[in-house]
Amino acid sequence: MEFLVRIDVHLPPDMPADERTRLLELESARGRELIAEGTLARIWRIPGRQSNWSLYSAPDATAVHAAVTSLPLWPYMDVRVEPLAAHPLEDGVR
Amino acid sequence: MEFLVRIDVHLPPDMPADERTRLLELESARGRELIAEGTLARIWRIPGRQSNWSLYSAPDATAVHAAVTSLPLWPYMDVRVEPLAAHPLEDGVR
Amino acid sequence: MEFLVRIDVHLPPDMPADERTRLLELESARGRELIAEGTLARIWRIPGRQSNWSLYSAPDATAVHAAVTSLPLWPYMDVRVEPLAAHPLEDGVR
Amino acid sequence: MEFLVRIDVHLPPDMPADERTRLLELESARGRELIAEGTLARIWRIPGRQSNWSLYSAPDATAVHAAVTSLPLWPYMDVRVEPLAAHPLEDGVR
Amino acid sequence: MEFLVRIDVHLPPDMPADERTRLLELESARGRELIAEGTLARIWRIPGRQSNWSLYSAPDATAVHAAVTSLPLWPYMDVRVEPLAAHPLEDGVR
Amino acid sequence: MEFLVRIDVHLPPDMPADERTRLLELESARGRELIAEGTLARIWRIPGRQSNWSLYSAPDATAVHAAVTSLPLWPYMDVRVEPLAAHPLEDGVR
Amino acid sequence: MEFLVRIDVHLPPDMPADERTRLLELESARGRELIAEGTLARIWRIPGRQSNWSLYSAPDATAVHAAVTSLPLWPYMDVRVEPLAAHPLEDGVR
Amino acid sequence: MEFLVRIDVHLPPDMPADERTRLLELESARGRELIAEGTLARIWRIPGRQSNWSLYSAPDATAVHAAVTSLPLWPYMDVRVEPLAAHPLEDGVR
Amino acid sequence: MEFLVRIDVHLPPDMPADERTRLLELESARGRELIAEGTLARIWRIPGRQSNWSLYSAPDATAVHAAVTSLPLWPYMDVRVEPLAAHPLEDGVR
Amino acid sequence: MEFLVRIDVHLPPDMPADERTRLLELESARGRELIAEGTLARIWRIPGRQSNWSLYSAPDATAVHAAVTSLPLWPYMDVRVEPLAAHPLEDGVR
Repeated sequence: MEFLVRIDVHLPPDMPADERTRLLELESARGRELIAEGTLARIWRIPGRQSNWSLYSAPDATAVHAAVTSLPLWPYMDVRVEPLAAHPLEDGVR
Repeated sequence: MEFLVRIDVHLPPDMPADERTRLLELESARGRELIAEGTLARIWRIPGRQSNWSLYSAPDATAVHAAVTSLPLWPYMDVRVEPLAAHPLEDGVR
Repeated sequence: MEFLVRIDVHLPPDMPADERTRLLELESARGRELIAEGTLARIWRIPGRQSNWSLYSAPDATAVHAAVTSLPLWPYMDVRVEPLAAHPLEDGVR
Repeated sequence: MEFLVRIDVHLPPDMPADERTRLLELESARGRELIAEGTLARIWRIPGRQSNWSLYSAPDATAVHAAVTSLPLWPYMDVRVEPLAAHPLEDGVR
Repeated sequence: MEFLVRIDVHLPPDMPADERTRLLELESARGRELIAEGTLARIWRIPGRQSNWSLYSAPDATAVHAAVTSLPLWPYMDVRVEPLAAHPLEDGVR
Repeated sequence: MEFLVRIDVHLPPDMPADERTRLLELESARGRELIAEGTLARIWRIPGRQSNWSLYSAPDATAVHAAVTSLPLWPYMDVRVEPLAAHPLEDGVR
Repeated sequence: MEFLVRIDVHLPPDMPADERTRLLELESARGRELIAEGTLARIWRIPGRQSNWSLYSAPDATAVHAAVTSLPLWPYMDVRVEPLAAHPLEDGVR
Repeated sequence: MEFLVRIDVHLPPDMPADERTRLLELESARGRELIAEGTLARIWRIPGRQSNWSLYSAPDATAVHAAVTSLPLWPYMDVRVEPLAAHPLEDGVR
Repeated sequence: MEFLVRIDVHLPPDMPADERTRLLELESARGRELIAEGTLARIWRIPGRQSNWSLYSAPDATAVHAAVTSLPLWPYMDVRVEPLAAHPLEDGVR
Repeated sequence: MEFLVRIDVHLPPDMPADERTRLLELESARGRELIAEGTLARIWRIPGRQSNWSLYSAPDATAVHAAVTSLPLWPYMDVRVEPLAAHPLEDGVR
């Protein structure tokens, strides 16, 4: 099943630069793992923001929860997960 | 997987009484079928409104869509479906 | 009477890990007590968030207030309680 | 248990004047019954609107639903019911 | 004139327990004075929250402002005051 | 006491032109009466809309309700009334 | 450039069944054309609603506008288009 | 002074095609006049919608109101006008 | 031109009392200047809040911006400015 | 392609004055560069706020993201970017 996920990250502006860098690198590494395992199917930046829309593919909402909360920036995130149903226009296309 | 579903029904106040009765009976019958097959696990009225909260149990969002759109009142409904993840407090309880 | 309760927890990201662990363990223990006494009937995680939907069964709103405010994480919670009315579809079912 | 109820009435502006008058009289009569039986404890107009805030006293949300939906204007209403818990400041006062 | 007042209190979770206790006791004492003088007619807890709905009776909005801002927790409050108009259903009842 | 009132008028686009003209003239006449009696202290158009902000001066919300609902366009209006308290900056000025 | 598009369709419940069928078939045919030409990259149903999330790929917002307004159901749609920026996690992946 | 104006047009889907065409042509002609006289400085379509953002240049809000309400589609519009202040970055640039 | 201005002040509850007093006195002094020069035409407290509605009279939005940002409490304010257009009911009255 | 961008800046009121000045100067310098290179086409202050509306001209959302996040105040900003489509009224005008 697919899920549309919107994440807004709120890092405190006074976080030390090296801590910020370290967290962003960890986040990036974990994101790459989720892509490699097929859980994170697509991800886009929302322009102007430290936010993204992403497309998750997972057996159910419990698995999505596990994936999103494994992200190192999770304590700084506001996350909304929306369930997606198949659209008949895609039958036989994908 | 479970889903929390909120439905607000907006029947036109000038719908003829017998048409209204007929639709509500069909709705009730279809609701009973969804309960019988285990798709509709719980349903509550939202007091004062022609609205309800309900708990669906279905393989995925595509199945929830099929169930909800099979309701005779669907053309009059505003529906929001939220995905639910398992909570560890329920492990070993249910 | 049943109540639908949505809770969003906002723990400060810089809370020390052991304090966080200690609070979550206390929360979990209290949650188990509320389940055991029948006040907390169901609980689900809202995927991607430190939030949950839960179903309380209590004599009235005063009892729900007592139950929710007994949770150790309550000072960090944003809580909304909605009253639920019986739905005729469940007559004779439950 | 007490409930705070907000009702917004939306009568179509082109409803014939006598139909409007008839409905408002029926509404008034039913309101007086709910007051007499103690279900409708207080009611206020929201200035400038065909809306009101009211205070219901009823065993549970199912009883509130029955009371509100018995109002002749119900098909034209948008209703929100909020549960109220006792406040310790009123102990020994009421 | 009557006013419907909603108050949400936001105490910092890290406020020392004795400061919290002291403030809540002062709040309670001031609340009792407002009840005694007839300004605070009714008050209910909003279940699950450090919030309340209350009914004020005062000559005008300036008097309500004076009453609410005299509460010791006022610096921590988000307050909304709504004006109430008399409803004809209550004529001759109260 | 003063009240800040926002009114949004929603006339159906297909209302016959003469009916529209007739209503607007009646509205204007009633508005002038409210100004003459001192109830309607100020009124401004909200640019681009058939809406206005106005300042009412009346003994209480019940009087404001009577004034606003006496407007011929009232059945087409969405109205919000906010109570205003005196500001100390105006002491001795007005 | 990619765009995230949310569409809510509001067909009048009293639209004749054959007109409804005819429109939905035209909509489906036009959707297939947009997929074939690569403008409509993905489309999902929002469960329980006559709504969808879709992913458009187009040179700019003017082209998205042309594509969306070419849909036969467009007069019945509420549409929101959000711009998407590339996310570095996808570099070298797609 | 400049104003940012957002307009959402809601034409009834069942408006006859020739009436629609006639109105859109009149709208277009009036728009061109507002551009020619310098009142309408810029205009953009909001993709996917019958809506636009536009930039008005006018002496004051009363003039903007006159300009917007002179548009033939005005009875079908929802309009919001926001005032704009000069930004120092543009000093000496424009 | 006139502007309707809503200001919500958010002073930190732990601001030292003398700093608070000093700021409020400066605010009051600056407010009196704006009244004296005719920029601040009216001001009301929003009951129960550290907020106000005010009426500014200024050549344009740039002048309103200068006036509002000259207030000593401005760094703690959330401000919304709405443009007002003349209403024909006031012609010949003011 | 053009984009409408709304930025709300939230500087902490207790930021030291020289740090504030330094940041605002850097911001101003970067803004001038974006104007010089043609990315920032227009910018207006939203009166009363540390906020602005601006018009960006860039190849796509990825370029807008790069421009906005290059602003020194970005960590303190809440940013919303809306895509703009060409309006036929401007054909042959610009």
